[in-house]
Parts: sequence; C-alpha cells; structure tokens
Amino acid sequence: MNRTMTTDDYLPIVAITMGDPASIGPEVAVKALADPAVYRVCRPLLIGDARLCKRVARSLGLDMHIHALSDVKDARFRTGTIDVVDLAYDSSEIRWGEVSALAGDAAFRTVVKAITMAMEGQVDATVTGPIHKESINLAGHYFSGHTEIYAHYTRTKKYGMLLVEGALRVIHVSTHVSLREACDLVKKPRVLETIELLADACVQLGVPQPRIGVAGLNPHASDGGLFGTEERDEILPAVEAARAMGYHVEGPLPADSLFPKAVGGAYDGCVAMYHDQGHIPFKTVGFDWDGGTGKMKSVRGVNITLGLPIIRTSVDHGTAMEIAGKGIASADAMKLAIDYAVLMAAGKNKTSL
Amino acid sequence: MNRTMTTDDYLPIVAITMGDPASIGPEVAVKALADPAVYRVCRPLLIGDARLCKRVARSLGLDMHIHALSDVKDARFRTGTIDVVDLAYDSSEIRWGEVSALAGDAAFRTVVKAITMAMEGQVDATVTGPIHKESINLAGHYFSGHTEIYAHYTRTKKYGMLLVEGALRVIHVSTHVSLREACDLVKKPRVLETIELLADACVQLGVPQPRIGVAGLNPHASDGGLFGTEERDEILPAVEAARAMGYHVEGPLPADSLFPKAVGGAYDGCVAMYHDQGHIPFKTVGFDWDGGTGKMKSVRGVNITLGLPIIRTSVDHGTAMEIAGKGIASADAMKLAIDYAVLMAAGKNKTSL
Repeated sequence: MNRTMTTDDYLPIVAITMGDPASIGPEVAVKALADPAVYRVCRPLLIGDARLCKRVARSLGLDMHIHALSDVKDARFRTGTIDVVDLAYDSSEIRWGEVSALAGDAAFRTVVKAITMAMEGQVDATVTGPIHKESINLAGHYFSGHTEIYAHYTRTKKYGMLLVEGALRVIHVSTHVSLREACDLVKKPRVLETIELLADACVQLGVPQPRIGVAGLNPHASDGGLFGTEERDEILPAVEAARAMGYHVEGPLPADSLFPKAVGGAYDGCVAMYHDQGHIPFKTVGFDWDGGTGKMKSVRGVNITLGLPIIRTSVDHGTAMEIAGKGIASADAMKLAIDYAVLMAAGKNKTSL
Repeated sequence: MNRTMTTDDYLPIVAITMGDPASIGPEVAVKALADPAVYRVCRPLLIGDARLCKRVARSLGLDMHIHALSDVKDARFRTGTIDVVDLAYDSSEIRWGEVSALAGDAAFRTVVKAITMAMEGQVDATVTGPIHKESINLAGHYFSGHTEIYAHYTRTKKYGMLLVEGALRVIHVSTHVSLREACDLVKKPRVLETIELLADACVQLGVPQPRIGVAGLNPHASDGGLFGTEERDEILPAVEAARAMGYHVEGPLPADSLFPKAVGGAYDGCVAMYHDQGHIPFKTVGFDWDGGTGKMKSVRGVNITLGLPIIRTSVDHGTAMEIAGKGIASADAMKLAIDYAVLMAAGKNKTSL
C-alpha cells in the first residue's frame, strides 16, 4: 500500500461491505454513500450486489447512479455515484429480515472479497456492515463473526477488538467465552499483549503517548485482595511489565470508576478484562433508547480489529433484522466506521502495526 | 411509624448521618440542609456532632443556626436551623482527610444512633453520609459497610442494595465477592429472591406494576448456550418462577443491551448478576468526570437498602478524603438520597416491605 505514502492529500480507497443482504446492512451502506462528506475523506467502494444496491437506493428515494464494476481501476469515486464491486449474487430469493443460507453465503463472500482486495493492496482499508452468524453458519461457513474470518484469511494469531465511542476506547482481554472462562484467561502475558495492542492502536489513531487505564477483574479491583487474587497475581505484574517497556499505564483500577472517568476523557484507552465489562459502558454511552417509541433512536460506536496486516473497522450494531427493508435504520455508525478507517489508513505509517 | 398514616400532608422525619467526620460527609449534609427545598418535603434531623456542624457551616459561609438536642421532641424543623442529635464526640483531634480510629468510631456511633431511632419509631427514615471502612475497622467495628451494619442491628437476613439514577434502578444478585464467587452465587433461589426484592421496592417507589429486566451472567446472555450454562440452568428458571408469581419479568437478557435500554426507560428495574455489571452503567450515567480539570464534576446516584424493617437511603459516592474540608463537594447526591427517603416513607404503606 505504497500509495498512502505518495502525497498528503491522497484519499484512501475504502472497501465497504454491504453485510447480510437480508439485514439493514445494504441500507446503511447506501445511506452513508449518499452523504457527500464521505467522498471528501476517502474513495469509497461498495462490495456486494449492484442490483440489490439499485433496489435499496430506489426504495430510499435516493437519486444515485449505481456503477457495477469488477476491477478497482474502473471505479469513478464521484459523489452521486456508488461504485459497486459486483459479486452478482442472486438476491431475488432473499427476504428482508430472514435468516437463510443464501443470505449467509452472499454476506460471507462479500467479506472474503474485501479481505482479498486489501491483502492485494487494491484498497487501503475495509469497513464491514453487519452479518448474521446463523446465516453464515447455515451456509457452511463456520465462523463466529467477522473478526474470526479476518484472522483466518489474513493468517493472524494475535488480534484484538477495539471499541471506540467518543473519548472511550476499549479493548478486551477476552470476549466470546463464558464469564468463568474469562476469569481463567486473565493471565499476565495475555493482559500485557492486550495493553500493547491498545497502546499501538492509540498511536495509529493519532495519540502519540497514550494514557492507558487497566481495569481490575473483581469488584473494587479486589479491594486490596479482599475479593479475588487476579489483580495481585496477574494484572499488576502485566501493568508493571508494560511500564518497564515505556508505556504510560495505570491499574488495575476499579472498573466502575475507570470507565466513567474514561468517558470524560481521563484515559486514551482502557483494557477491559471481559466482554461485558467493556461493552456495557460502551453501549451505555453510544446507544440511545427512546422509551416513548420503544425503539433504538441511534446507535453509535465503532469496532476496529487490531493486529491484522490490513485495516478493518466496523459498525458495532447488529443486523437489526426486525427493521430491515423499512428505511428507518441510522447510518451514523457506518459513517463513523468509515471515518475511523480513514484515520487508521493515515496513521498506518506511524506505527509498526 | 403510625404517624405516616395520619394525614396526607404529614412530613416524614428523616435522620441524616454526618458520615465520617474527616470526610466530605459533614459538608454535604450541612450544604443539603441549607437548601429550603429539603424542609418542604421532610423534617430533617442531623445525627452527629453539633460543634463540628457549626464549624463546617461557618467555613462554608452559611448563616445557619445549629440547634443541639438529644430528644427528637425538642427539634424545631425550621429552615435556617439545623437540628443536630448531638453525640458530642470530640472532633478536635480529627484532621480532614485522615483515616483514624477516632473518626471511625464517631462515624460508627452515628450510624448506630440513626438505626436505633428508626427502629424505635422516632424517625420515619434514615439517610447516610459516607463512612470509611478502614477507619471503622481501626476503631474495632468489623463491618465492610453501612449495609452490613444495618443488617446486623436490625437483625435482617435477606437484604439487597438498590442503585437509582434517573430511569435506571439496579439490584445485584451479589456484590462484594470475587467474580469467580459471584458466578457460583448465580442460583435460582437467590435470583428469584432478588427479583422479588426489586419488584416490591419499585412498588414502594411508586411504580405499581414494574417491568423488570434480568441480565444474563455471560456475554450475549450465553448466546443460546454457546458461552456458559447459568442462563439456562439458573436464571431462566428464576424468571419463569417470578412470572408464575405474577411479576412482569423479562430475561435473561444480554447485559450490554439491557442496561443501555434501561437508561432510556425500557425497564422500571434491572437485576444485575454481579457488582460491576450493575455499577458500571450506574456510574457511567451518574458520574460526570471533567477531563479538563481532572476532577469529578458531579456524582449523582442513590443507594437504597432493601429488605430492612426501616428505611435507609444513601449517597452512593465515597468519603472523597482528598477534597474533605475544601468546601467543593457537591451535595446533589445527598439531596437526592433525602428525596428517595421521603418517597420510600410515603410508599411504606403500599407494600409489605
């Protein structure tokens, strides 16, 4: 990807996947690309199906030209035109909101295409729309999510997921395991590795000397050993090792004060010990539930996979099958995910990541 | 406490403890009682030391009359006067911000006095200021906090702590135990008991048919059994038993969507499976950290002990020793705690709690 180095005003080429064709994925992608602001920061390229894209744009009343292509060289990158790398999957039998092998296979092939293009240096970054795990698995692709697909096709062993929402940046020591197993995974080498991934990512996101806050596993970070031993035996040694390497790290800190303070900007990045410890504050800040209508008003928050040889950011919301095809999905998270992909592409030369 | 039933315009007598005399406790109590709004909803009675109270009022530049008394009958309950049940402990050797047996003993005796007065029906409700666990223990009173002191002196076995901030009301299946032990404590009878405590408290707080949301223990509430078994084996059976008893309960729900939705008003009360699961969203919403000054701008949030024969609400913040005596502590949480004590006193006749 030497192209990123040629000039300062180079606009990165960003591949955006349409996600599950039965979900809100195509809608949020098309809505995002209808925003001229996106074209001012990057050259976006949709990966998916051109006919479906046309259908969605029409139903949304958007006057966009859908330009199907198979080679990046043919892309126009012009506001008002959506360049689609057309996988031409048959979307005629896919119904909005329905879980199916057909939709799962289409979604899966879209992701693999984006990864391949990035690995071949045809695009500078990738942004993914939501996929449905059940559909993917019905189609015979046994992955639990995007991160695992990316890790597999880029042959990456050490990776992490960074959640970003406003001033809050969170990485997890473990994610999709039971809470009991998460306790077992709190080990010094793993915690240290996670601190390093986070600190390097912060540099790439434009914070040269990030202040890192590390959460404890137990309530009150064990209150001096009263409730649990992981703070003393695993987390503190990892924090001390990271400090010895030159990182600016505090912890282990009580999670219920670390995250509220991080939301206010006290830390550039936080390490959560398990899934919910990081996801709860992230979504409490980023999600806006409307009690009156009983609907989610907006869903912000971006998910960035760290440790990959390529750039991947993503919306952090799901497929929202219940509102697919209704035209009411918010593209806020998708636009934010594109912004972060651009930021990561610009920062790529600043770190060894 | 038959007095609460006599008339509709009866103002409950609320005992407010000054908390640890070396902490921000005396300051937030005096500041709260300088607000005439407090006297419109209740008849407040400070428990602590009259000389310390005078000193604090003077240093805050508040023109208040401090009225020392030993019998409730002598209280004046007038705006501009602070009635203090005077324990006359020697505060001359207590230094702001210092942990000491002297301060711990004073704080402890203050709490016990409030409990005794409530048990004897002299006051309708109690509100506690912050105490310091280390000082209490130095003084030879081996309790981990207010809740345990209240449980002991009221001989209560089944109790719970309800956190309230805006639309969010949270109760926990366990609190001050390690995360591994918290996993072990997720058992059907305990979860069911917690649901009942919460639902009854919501009724007492004025919600006749509360909608209760119960969190899962594992990420994604185990995603159909992929990560952990507690949802299927313990939590769901408890939810079903609660439904059979007539409660309106949903769950187990993924914690990282339950709490953001509860903040927006989707539930009248939430059951968290462990300390941080409930405290993280509660403090993320209630605490306001100022990144510019590196200080906590405000701390809202009230803590209500459920299951006691008497009413107890509390500020949810700590002793904040580092700013004690500086005159900059916010009394917002104390005023809110008084409001909830009044609400609970008014609701006391509506439930068997």
